[in-house]
Amino acid sequence: MFDLIIKNADLDGKLTGIGIKDGIIKAIRPHIEEPSKDTIDAKDKIITSAFANMHTHAAMSLLKGIGQDLPLMDWLQKVIWPLESKFVSKEFVKAGTELAIAKMIREGTTFFLDMYFFEEEMASIVEQAGIRAGLGFGILDFPTKVASTPDEHIDRAKHFMHNFKDNKSIIPVICPHSPYTCSKSTLKKVINLRDEYNAYIHMHISETKKEVENLYLEHGKYPIEYLNDIGLLNERFIGAHGVHLNDEEIAIAKEKSITIVHCPDSNLKLGSGIAPIWKYVKSGVRIALGTDSEASNDNLSMMEEMSIMAKLQKGYLQDPTAMPINKAIKIATKNGFEAFNIKAGEIKEGFDADIIIINPNDITNIPIYNKKASILYSLNSSYIETTIARGKVLYHKGEFKTLDIEKIIYNTKHWQDKISNAL
Amino acid sequence: MFDLIIKNADLDGKLTGIGIKDGIIKAIRPHIEEPSKDTIDAKDKIITSAFANMHTHAAMSLLKGIGQDLPLMDWLQKVIWPLESKFVSKEFVKAGTELAIAKMIREGTTFFLDMYFFEEEMASIVEQAGIRAGLGFGILDFPTKVASTPDEHIDRAKHFMHNFKDNKSIIPVICPHSPYTCSKSTLKKVINLRDEYNAYIHMHISETKKEVENLYLEHGKYPIEYLNDIGLLNERFIGAHGVHLNDEEIAIAKEKSITIVHCPDSNLKLGSGIAPIWKYVKSGVRIALGTDSEASNDNLSMMEEMSIMAKLQKGYLQDPTAMPINKAIKIATKNGFEAFNIKAGEIKEGFDADIIIINPNDITNIPIYNKKASILYSLNSSYIETTIARGKVLYHKGEFKTLDIEKIIYNTKHWQDKISNAL
Repeated sequence: MFDLIIKNADLDGKLTGIGIKDGIIKAIRPHIEEPSKDTIDAKDKIITSAFANMHTHAAMSLLKGIGQDLPLMDWLQKVIWPLESKFVSKEFVKAGTELAIAKMIREGTTFFLDMYFFEEEMASIVEQAGIRAGLGFGILDFPTKVASTPDEHIDRAKHFMHNFKDNKSIIPVICPHSPYTCSKSTLKKVINLRDEYNAYIHMHISETKKEVENLYLEHGKYPIEYLNDIGLLNERFIGAHGVHLNDEEIAIAKEKSITIVHCPDSNLKLGSGIAPIWKYVKSGVRIALGTDSEASNDNLSMMEEMSIMAKLQKGYLQDPTAMPINKAIKIATKNGFEAFNIKAGEIKEGFDADIIIINPNDITNIPIYNKKASILYSLNSSYIETTIARGKVLYHKGEFKTLDIEKIIYNTKHWQDKISNAL
Repeated sequence: MFDLIIKNADLDGKLTGIGIKDGIIKAIRPHIEEPSKDTIDAKDKIITSAFANMHTHAAMSLLKGIGQDLPLMDWLQKVIWPLESKFVSKEFVKAGTELAIAKMIREGTTFFLDMYFFEEEMASIVEQAGIRAGLGFGILDFPTKVASTPDEHIDRAKHFMHNFKDNKSIIPVICPHSPYTCSKSTLKKVINLRDEYNAYIHMHISETKKEVENLYLEHGKYPIEYLNDIGLLNERFIGAHGVHLNDEEIAIAKEKSITIVHCPDSNLKLGSGIAPIWKYVKSGVRIALGTDSEASNDNLSMMEEMSIMAKLQKGYLQDPTAMPINKAIKIATKNGFEAFNIKAGEIKEGFDADIIIINPNDITNIPIYNKKASILYSLNSSYIETTIARGKVLYHKGEFKTLDIEKIIYNTKHWQDKISNAL
């Protein structure tokens, strides 16, 4: 008895059945005769892996698109940080996270990697929603809403690490914010905590040229080199952005097996630059994909992010063979899960059943000669009809199965009114 | 008596009524008391100008997304031209154009500028659909489906010019394909025809670096310089792409008041490069926006095109103040209409009522703090609910008012089957 069968699934041109039990893809066969508690017909649809959104600040969805046409530091210092200082609270984080997770489920994301505050509150929402997340408290040298000193921040992180280390939906992650907001002494404490728990680290690196230059002026080293010398880099290090890496840094990134999370939309909009990730890929560095927060994106669509990623590399390098379809899709799906040793991101027996089904049957999307190409270049995420995470249907034909969407909309309006008054 | 009133339209934060008669925006006032044949309520919606898609090959929608990860010349010579040689006919052009126009109406475009073959067939579809278009036969030195010699191509163009010169929906345009497919002698004949009709010219220019280098090798001049010396450039010259202009060419483009149509999506995907259009804009060159055909885009969404355009300039220049919101929207709307002396592209009394209404009330789109920013950065064109062209509602809440959408879908499937068999 399967929990869920997807029938008429088009996998590389062949119509097959997909049998799912206990959250795992157990059978991929032309016809599945066994009974099932639930069946979805994917005839004339497009089926693909769900996305892993590997860099977010989910709660910031309440600050969606605030502050236009500003450089990163002005945007942070003059717009975002003052708003956060005024509004961020447990309630803000709960409402923002619920909103972001609803959007992610709607747009086919079943795993996200987040850095923010009040991650305990986020954790219970992630569990209830039925998706998975890597969550971590931002660690900074200056006072934030959750702590005053680096040590207090690290204590919060340790506490969270301890409480969630065996959770099935949450992977606790240590999140030193960046090399420019954490001193070397803070980073050494981060390493101690990491070693105690064999933990993942998630950190902003090399987002802007200016921050790279400043670090060099202060320490005489480039960010990846600097972090490596401190001892921060290993295969559990996940760096967001990585826009401005030099060849030596690329070599270190490969040697240490770190993951770099490309966030093209946010990098473009904030004027941070175009990360030459095709070069990183060819050098053997693992690349995953993230939207960054809705404050700088301004949405959480991984389909849009993936499309921009692929086109950007081709155009930037003036090489249309750069970033071919299968590679682009893999970066947006499997590579993210893999960074956390999760066996998902591919529709294959033995993999977790994190799957989306797209209904492309609209005048804007036809004709379709190559379904994978249409996912990458033509369709938008509004056409996602079904999102399945570990075998559980979370969204289907407009209906959210695990979230009270009306309540989320109501809460969002409430926060929008409050925040609007402060703008 | 108005033909149409749009009530509760949010124009720069103020709720107003918009009264439309004879295709023109006649009144913009807080409350319109006069009667109207039709009323649309735009409460809680986003209203903005319809788009002018200034570079298309509409019929190629039947070849949507064919040929992935190939450079422009390989893509043209090995994939697209052989398919066109096999399939392009009056019937192909009719079916493809109907499909493309349905998509354009669905996604808020009410004017398009097209270069292809069998433009007479296209013209009757444009008129029936209720939108407007600049249409022109491609003129090439080598044989095509419509003519064998340059002179025969020019005769076709002249014939079309003559028949449509006073049409209210069609602007006949002369379309020499490019400097690399039309000899100097052909271009001189194009100039004679242009001068006879005071006509517009639409041409591919400087799409790839290679074509620019080849032209320089052959003629010792860069494309804009070369075309200017021949006498082709004036305020009625509309050049598509313009990716690789040097400073002298930018100066000529400004001096001659030509329009350059930016096609970022197609330029990225084909690896042609990133046009530095913010530099062109700051130099005083008029820039409009186009999707190019669906074969290289792979959709006709002007909202996506506009979003990519704005983000690309910011990221490419590492300057988030480049291409601010109002400028980006103007390039996608008013600048296109203006290139053809059409008073549209703005919601203002005396302007043609080419208007779209977007329904953003979906979990993925909230909260909205700045409606214009949300059009540019956050929303996708699936949320367009109403498209109005010259005061006539062409699309509203899923219903096409002037097109038989079922027939178009049926015909598209028929062509898809035929073309698939040839791939």
